Order: sequence, then C-alpha cells, then structure tokens
Amino acid sequence: MIKSHDPDDRTPDEGVPARGFPVAEFEVRLARAQAGMAEAGLDGLLLTTEPEIRYFTGFLTRFWLSPTRPWFLLVPAAGKPVAVVPSIGRECFEATWLDDLRCWDSPQPYDEGVTLLAETIRERFGESPRIGLLEGPETHMRVPLADFRRICASLPGAAFVDATSLVRSLRMVKSPAEIEKIAHACRIISGVFATFADQLRIGMPETEIFRRFKIACLEAGIDDVDYLVGGAGPGGYGNIISPPSERRLRDGDILMLDTGAVFDGYYCDFDRNYAVGHVPARAARAYDTLIHATESGLHAARPGATCAEVYRAMKAVIDKAFPGESDVGRMGHGLGMQLTEWPSFAAHDDTLLQPGMVLTLEPSVGLPGGAMMVHEENFLLTADGPVLLTAPAPATLAVIA
Amino acid sequence: MIKSHDPDDRTPDEGVPARGFPVAEFEVRLARAQAGMAEAGLDGLLLTTEPEIRYFTGFLTRFWLSPTRPWFLLVPAAGKPVAVVPSIGRECFEATWLDDLRCWDSPQPYDEGVTLLAETIRERFGESPRIGLLEGPETHMRVPLADFRRICASLPGAAFVDATSLVRSLRMVKSPAEIEKIAHACRIISGVFATFADQLRIGMPETEIFRRFKIACLEAGIDDVDYLVGGAGPGGYGNIISPPSERRLRDGDILMLDTGAVFDGYYCDFDRNYAVGHVPARAARAYDTLIHATESGLHAARPGATCAEVYRAMKAVIDKAFPGESDVGRMGHGLGMQLTEWPSFAAHDDTLLQPGMVLTLEPSVGLPGGAMMVHEENFLLTADGPVLLTAPAPATLAVIA
Repeated sequence: MIKSHDPDDRTPDEGVPARGFPVAEFEVRLARAQAGMAEAGLDGLLLTTEPEIRYFTGFLTRFWLSPTRPWFLLVPAAGKPVAVVPSIGRECFEATWLDDLRCWDSPQPYDEGVTLLAETIRERFGESPRIGLLEGPETHMRVPLADFRRICASLPGAAFVDATSLVRSLRMVKSPAEIEKIAHACRIISGVFATFADQLRIGMPETEIFRRFKIACLEAGIDDVDYLVGGAGPGGYGNIISPPSERRLRDGDILMLDTGAVFDGYYCDFDRNYAVGHVPARAARAYDTLIHATESGLHAARPGATCAEVYRAMKAVIDKAFPGESDVGRMGHGLGMQLTEWPSFAAHDDTLLQPGMVLTLEPSVGLPGGAMMVHEENFLLTADGPVLLTAPAPATLAVIA
Repeated sequence: MIKSHDPDDRTPDEGVPARGFPVAEFEVRLARAQAGMAEAGLDGLLLTTEPEIRYFTGFLTRFWLSPTRPWFLLVPAAGKPVAVVPSIGRECFEATWLDDLRCWDSPQPYDEGVTLLAETIRERFGESPRIGLLEGPETHMRVPLADFRRICASLPGAAFVDATSLVRSLRMVKSPAEIEKIAHACRIISGVFATFADQLRIGMPETEIFRRFKIACLEAGIDDVDYLVGGAGPGGYGNIISPPSERRLRDGDILMLDTGAVFDGYYCDFDRNYAVGHVPARAARAYDTLIHATESGLHAARPGATCAEVYRAMKAVIDKAFPGESDVGRMGHGLGMQLTEWPSFAAHDDTLLQPGMVLTLEPSVGLPGGAMMVHEENFLLTADGPVLLTAPAPATLAVIA
C-alpha cells in the first residue's frame, strides 16, 4: 500500500523501516516480470494468491483469511497490472500504484468475478492470449475449481501455461527494501529470544509459554506472530509443527520455540532451544551437532553454489554424529512474504544461490526413541557470502531454571 | 488433536473449554458425512484444505502457513478417514483417531504425494470410484494445479464430482463442543472490548492501538489474534479491511476495530466502534441505525427463515435511514473454524437457518463522501431463536477522551 504522509502522523522510530514501498519498487518488479514474459512468449500472468498479488501491487490485508471472495490480478506483457477484485477492496486498490481497477459486488456465487475477469482478459489480451498461471510446486489457485473451469470455458481461444519458474525467479531475489523488513523482523525476534528464558520456569504449561512469547514479540514492536510452534519433551521433542499443549515443563526437557513473526508483511522464521533444569548429555551433543551443521551450511552458501550442495554440507555433519537418522525433508528454505518460500536446502534442489536471496538454515537431528532437535537461523546471501540476519544462537544450550 | 492427559499437566481454568474433541465428535461428523455420501452416490471425499482436514481428524497446526507441502485426506463411504500426508506430520496424525496413515518425505516436488495418493485411492476405492471434491463457492484446492492434473491422469477411471454442498451442510451446523469454543472466544474478546477504550488517547497512532489490542487479547486468554483490521477517519472510515497506518487519532474520528480471534482453532468475528473526542451527529445516527439493523436481523433470524430474509430485515432499516447507499456485499455470515463461512446474509442466499448455526450480523452504512460504518455481533441460532455470543455493543458510541 502506498501511504500518504500527513505531517500529523507518526514518524516511525529510528531504525524501523518505512511501511510499504515506493512506486519505483513496483516498477522494477514489473519490468523484471515483463522481461521474463517476453522471453516466455506470454501475453500476461493471471495471479490469484496473496503473495503474488501483493508483490505486484502492495495490497496488504489480513482479509485473505476470509475464503469467500476471489481476487484476480492480471500482469500484462506491457503496461501496468490490472486488478479485478471484489468492491470491498476498492479503496485499498485505489491507494496502490495501479490505474486499471475493476470491481464486482461480492459475494455473488453465481458469477463470482468470472464474467468480469473473462471480459477484462478479452479486452486487454484479445481472443487468443497465452496466459501464465502458477501451476507448479508450492503454488495453488485460490479460486473455486468450478469457477476456474468457467473462466477457461469463457476464453476458448486462450492458452494457459505454467509460469511458476518465472514468478519464482523474481520473488526468490529480494530487493534492499524487502531485505530491510525481513532483517527488522529478525532483529526484533532475536531480541525477544535473548531474554525470553528469564520468563520461563519449571512447571509452566506450554500454553502459557506460547502466550507470553507472543506478548513479548508484540511489545518489542512486531506486527503479528503468525507462526509459533514447538513444544517440550524429555531430551527432545516429537515433532516441530505442534500447537502448545497443557503439558508443564519438567526437569530434563528440551523446549523448542519456532516462530514466523511478521513486520509489514515480511517474515522471519527461526527457532531457539532451551534445556529445562539441566542439559541431558545427548541433547548437548545433538545441539552441538546442529550448531556445527549450521556453520557448515553457512560456509557452503556462496553465490553459484546449489541448494543441494548446502544441504549436503549440513547433512555430512549430522550423518557423522548421528548416523542413520532421518531429517524432516529439507534443511532450510527461502523466506520473505511467506513463512517458507522456494528454494529448499534439499538433495533434489539444484537452484543456484544468488546474491539477494534470503534463506533459512534448518538442520535437524533425529534421536533414538522418536525425539528430535532442530535449529534454525536466517541469512541474506550477498556477493561476498552469507550475512546472518538473526543474532546467532548461543554455542551451548541455554538452561531454564 | 487428541491429547493424552498426564496428572502433572495443567488443568485448564474453570470456564475454559477443553482443547480438542473426544473421538465421539469425529465419529458423529463421519457418520453424517457418510450418510450424505450414500445419498450422493460417492465412494469417498478427497480433501486438501485446512478446515476440512481438521474437521474430520482434529489435526490442528499453524504449519499450513507454509505452502510447500500438500496434505490429503480421503473420507471413504465406509470406515475411518485415511490421511496421505508429508512425514513431517506423522507424529501429529498418529495422535489423531485415524488408523490408516500414509506418509511421504516432502518436499519432493517431482512427485509431491501424487503417486502415493493415487495408489491409496486405487487400493481403497478400486479403479472407477466417484470421488467428491470441493469445487464450489468459497473453496479452493490446496494442491498445485499441475499435480491435481497428474492425480486425475493417474486415475483414468475415476469420476471427480463437486461435493461442496455436502461438506457445507455438515460444517454449517455446529456441535455443542464447537459452539463452546466459539462462545469462549466471543466472551474473551467481549471482555477486552469492554475496557479497551480506557487505553486509547487522541494522538495515538493506529499501529500502537492495534498492537495494544492484540496484547490485551492474549493477556485475556485468547490463543491468537489472526485477524485485526479497521482504522479511523473523520466521521467514519474508508474501508473495513485495512491494516493499521501510522495515522494518529484525531478529534471527530470514528475508530473501528474488527477482530477474528481464535481459541483452539475456532474464531469469533466482531467489531466495535469508538468516537474520538466527541460524537459527530451523523456518526451517531449511523451507529444508531446499525444497532437497530442488528436488532432487526436478530428478530428475523429464526429456524426456517432464509438468509435473504434476515438480510432484507437489516437492509430495510438501513435503507430507511440512509437511502441509496450501498453495503459491502453482505450483512453477515457463518463463523467457526474459519473467520467467514457459509452461508451469507445476502440477497442471493436462500439457505434455511437451522438450530446449531453460528453466524455474524454485520450491517454497514455508506456515508456521503466515501466514509462508512460497520457493526458486527455473533450469535448462535437455537430452536427458540438467536442467542448472542458477544456482549452486545453499547446503545450509543463509546467516546475516547
């Protein structure tokens, strides 16, 4: 969203990045997209999902939580994007840099923007356009399947082709303004983690720990704590995606909190581990292995390296210390407008690392008996190598009294 | 998630509903689904979205924020649901009531569960099953389009048909345990709203107001404040879906906060309006109209009435006081596992109201000059009529000093 600045309005505190983006940011994104579209022979992109529509317009709202209304953005091969959106979003879109805005009164399930979208496509692209969609890994169409079929049927001359690799190549490399927002989220949450253990005590239930953590993040200046998972268990935890239970912290537990907190629509995503009461020997060794695996990953993360190479660098450290144990499918990923983005630090991912990428390193160790431990840091890749955005975790496990 | 109860774990405070559901809840949901499937001649449902998978399994996690991995649930015409999910979710699904769990190591973009799902469908349903999908209004498939095509191609004998109305009919009527969770969220947030104005002052920026509100909700015992939108403007606000700006509260503003806060995966969704400094005459009249429209809607909301009738009851009050002004497309909606659910209080919606539905009434008034005001309450429909779950807003606008 482009914000008008009234002299009476608050000047954000020093060190806090400005909200929104200047128009030039969107012009650069569009120019890069249009270069890719020319190369791919596309007349336009049809986008339906939150990050993509925000990427080209700045439209930021929590209203995506309501599944009722679809939102459409057309990115043409020449000229500015065209929004085809429910009228409830009219004022928000009028405040963006777009000129061409078309609204229908929604909800209107018997024709939920379908006719308006098809008319707009025909008007802007003619009868037989080649239109790029997001059909590939980590995407979905946020449109009812029946409506998508209607859209296709309304445009019998149109060819819909997959444009995932184009959109992925744009979004994977962050601009300085995007990096500033992610770095700000990382800084705030690093500060929270640095002192949070002081609030914790043996006997405290997970629900209370989670609630206190969210409050601490908000008080430190974050916008939202969209993602907070983790838990505690003897010597490790069973999984890394659980909500809090009513279980109380016990001596010998390892507690992990993994958070994706948001500043102005951009995420950090990292975790911290704590030992409760004392540090069990095996947990100390697992933690040490994770810290070393992270260092090894950071060392391997250079422009021109592949994601698979970084994965193998981390995996080698873990395999040596905990042979035969499995991981959670990957050891890190892209980060930005979404909690997880392409690429993946995984054996299958040959994406070449480039300066401007923001990524997580997330090695994990499976322990006998089903417990596990995971560690995560966030970094920016520069031409000179990686720069951590998170204040690195302590070299040995912090202990909760 | 079915939780094991250790005697050392915390007993939730009195008045706080138990987390999760007993197995009997899922058995009833499944039996109702299977009755509908028998009627519709379906061999199974294939579900890919968070609320539907949670509805039949209890699987609750914030991990859905990561777009990387698809999750599949098959609900067969006979027998328990079958989960086909990434191995990162294995432990969580093992804790559900399901018996048949199949996992693949994800991410694996070259075959992201496609082969495993197709094999499972073939094994459970044979070569030519009729499988229900969610294709209709307010749904989407949370699977890459290319993968969905691969699934269909792997099952050439299968017929995929729309089962939206079946799933909608189940989810629209809430169980007592579901109602308890929604009512609890409504109670907590009603308490926050009751005293929140005391924290506000002229000159406070919206970003600070939003942050303080979220902290107050967490301190009051809510799990998450997923949705908080609104804003302030002279005599009304421009839209109802914006994030906070740095704008400071001014004398003559109307401030609105609309929140969807969550307890154990269930939402409340309502707003409150505040006048800043003094109450502008037109805002007082608009507020009074909204309160009366809400009362009129409550009066019309009886079992057997249609949603359109409730809409017209509210619209009549608004048209009389503010003729010719438009609304935001509907005047309320279903509420539960999602911030907004079917049905809609809208002219087009002939859904019959039934006991057990939880709904919002959300009349809005458009004011000359583009400003607007919206009011919202949440209620449960019983056989005897509606019961408010929210502590009703004051009859006249609260004033911030």
